[in-house]
Amino acid sequence: MPRLHWEDFSPGQVIECGSRLLTRAEIVAFAAEYDPQPMHLDEAAARATLFGGLVASGWHSCCVLMRMLSDDFLRDASFMGAPGVEEVKWLAPVRPGENLKVRATVLESRLSPSRPNTGMVKFLFELTGAAGTRLMTLTASLVFERAGNPVMVAADRSAPRPT
Amino acid sequence: MPRLHWEDFSPGQVIECGSRLLTRAEIVAFAAEYDPQPMHLDEAAARATLFGGLVASGWHSCCVLMRMLSDDFLRDASFMGAPGVEEVKWLAPVRPGENLKVRATVLESRLSPSRPNTGMVKFLFELTGAAGTRLMTLTASLVFERAGNPVMVAADRSAPRPT
Repeated sequence: MPRLHWEDFSPGQVIECGSRLLTRAEIVAFAAEYDPQPMHLDEAAARATLFGGLVASGWHSCCVLMRMLSDDFLRDASFMGAPGVEEVKWLAPVRPGENLKVRATVLESRLSPSRPNTGMVKFLFELTGAAGTRLMTLTASLVFERAGNPVMVAADRSAPRPT
Repeated sequence: MPRLHWEDFSPGQVIECGSRLLTRAEIVAFAAEYDPQPMHLDEAAARATLFGGLVASGWHSCCVLMRMLSDDFLRDASFMGAPGVEEVKWLAPVRPGENLKVRATVLESRLSPSRPNTGMVKFLFELTGAAGTRLMTLTASLVFERAGNPVMVAADRSAPRPT
């Protein structure tokens, strides 16, 4: 049973989500599958781009962030998905061997107008590298079940949205 | 050499980007790596969620869209990356076996104030399924080299940003 529900998140709250090393092999494998641009695929080709060397796909950063959240507080939470993403900013290149960290800050919290047993929590997620350099920011509202309100299973299949 | 440069994109222009079948195996493999929530991993577990069955991670939809763009007009273009994403809306679940299509519409085009040999093109990307149902919309500005203006290689490593 989840320990964290909608009520457990309040504006101003900050959650530090551990760390993850991103390897060159992971960067290249992701790019080959989803974002096959020269700067993500091959060191020599990447040197001839504005990045001057291999950098992770920005989408890879988003996916790694999602995994870091999933391995941290989301695994203990009544997390139900999200209607989308409000903004992503790729602030600086993510290089091979970067030790990534994520800081989640609660910006807003509100009940769902359409699903009284759920609420939305708007987060600012900051992906940082060595020395705390901000590499990416991402703003999104996540849906959580309220405490003591079991989700109505498949009660309404018209509205749900994926993570 | 790229055929398409910044000058080749103008507001109102629409590009249809082929199609791609998304399989159950791909959905589960992506989720296991990046977004391990029950609704993306396992059919039985997914039936107990609001989605009533397995759905692709929204991040998977973003990544597949990026790949579809890369296999279509971006492979012929002087594409240099993007500073971020302005908005993603996950409008409806992406189910296994969905035949995805992407429509790219140019919303705006402007020269870069800081890099005179490049320009930004703001796109609305629409991911659709069977019968043209809109499953996701994504708005982002992409950077392209201008025609006849070779990119200055590694001239400034402070500003570049990944895709």
